[in-house]
Amino acid sequence: MTKEELTKLITKLVIENMKKQDQRIHLGVSNRHVHLDRADMNILFGINSELTNKKDLGQPGQFAAEEVVTMLGPKGEIERVRILGPLRSKTQIEISASDGRKLGINAPLRESGLTENTPGVELIGPAGKVHKDMGVIVSLRHIHMTPKDALSAGVKDGQRVSVQVGDKTKRGAILQNVLIRISDRYALEMHIDVDEALALGVGNGDYAEIVE
Amino acid sequence: MTKEELTKLITKLVIENMKKQDQRIHLGVSNRHVHLDRADMNILFGINSELTNKKDLGQPGQFAAEEVVTMLGPKGEIERVRILGPLRSKTQIEISASDGRKLGINAPLRESGLTENTPGVELIGPAGKVHKDMGVIVSLRHIHMTPKDALSAGVKDGQRVSVQVGDKTKRGAILQNVLIRISDRYALEMHIDVDEALALGVGNGDYAEIVE
Repeated sequence: MTKEELTKLITKLVIENMKKQDQRIHLGVSNRHVHLDRADMNILFGINSELTNKKDLGQPGQFAAEEVVTMLGPKGEIERVRILGPLRSKTQIEISASDGRKLGINAPLRESGLTENTPGVELIGPAGKVHKDMGVIVSLRHIHMTPKDALSAGVKDGQRVSVQVGDKTKRGAILQNVLIRISDRYALEMHIDVDEALALGVGNGDYAEIVE
Repeated sequence: MTKEELTKLITKLVIENMKKQDQRIHLGVSNRHVHLDRADMNILFGINSELTNKKDLGQPGQFAAEEVVTMLGPKGEIERVRILGPLRSKTQIEISASDGRKLGINAPLRESGLTENTPGVELIGPAGKVHKDMGVIVSLRHIHMTPKDALSAGVKDGQRVSVQVGDKTKRGAILQNVLIRISDRYALEMHIDVDEALALGVGNGDYAEIVE
């Protein structure tokens, strides 16, 4: 191999590696949480109360709040469930399938926002409690991305893709039916829940890659 | 299409469907459980005590026993952990990653039987308690099969395969690194744990299929 050929080869390998790095998607593991609307915030934490930012999340403007509630279901309760901010137009409760077992709630797998015909739960805060008739879901795994990320990955909003997650020599898998969500307000990040993270042997900061 | 061509086509489709049915593998979901050796059985349930068969399991001769123990770890305990029979030559404790969190035990992913350098746990029975220095694992997902099944599937003992599990339009996935275990004493069955079952949206009696 000549010096020139070697230079070409190295350049090629470096570019390939850069492209590969670009395609990697940070994993974010969602623990059970609640998005509150203004009305429920008033009941649970007091009239005109405000959420306190405890920690910024991966998506711009989103944060884990200091505020927590207790969730009470027919079979059990879960304490210290974190509220995510900012407030939304409609209260939504996201739990894992194992949380559902503990609470005695058969929450369906849904895209965020699609809460029609979902079960409810009782939420208990320091200022009061509210019985939600609906709004409890197991969130469908999804990838947040910007229009630029989407162009680079060749995917469209609402598309379902298959994604390599985890170590192929341990508990790795190609997850099917991963929802693509595109917005200027997003950052590139794949969200799975705690059941999925434990089953796949992955955690926050690990990577995923769209394979199909 | 002539009558003859139609007959041929239907025959072909029926045979293909039968082959497909043959390749389906029953899923069995393993909850946390303990295999006891004679010495630990004596301590936990009394000298020369015997296990009582509560329910036959998918593998011939294996059963869930009436007997249960409490598991005590550094961070918490889990009650009513079932003993599986018959007794074995060495005590082995199989938990899920989420059980490990609750107990405060970082159990490694292992093939059954490979318990070197694994953490321990305290087991508490009606007749006494025993502190195991080792033996706690998260069992690597695996497929039990007979030599005949293996021939039909074209796989060897110890091989790792990829397996389609779950509904591709819900939480389905192709699981990698699934261990093949072959013995005349086995029945065709794939074992996953509760974390995996919840993450994939599957349960006992669902099917899996080797894809690679």
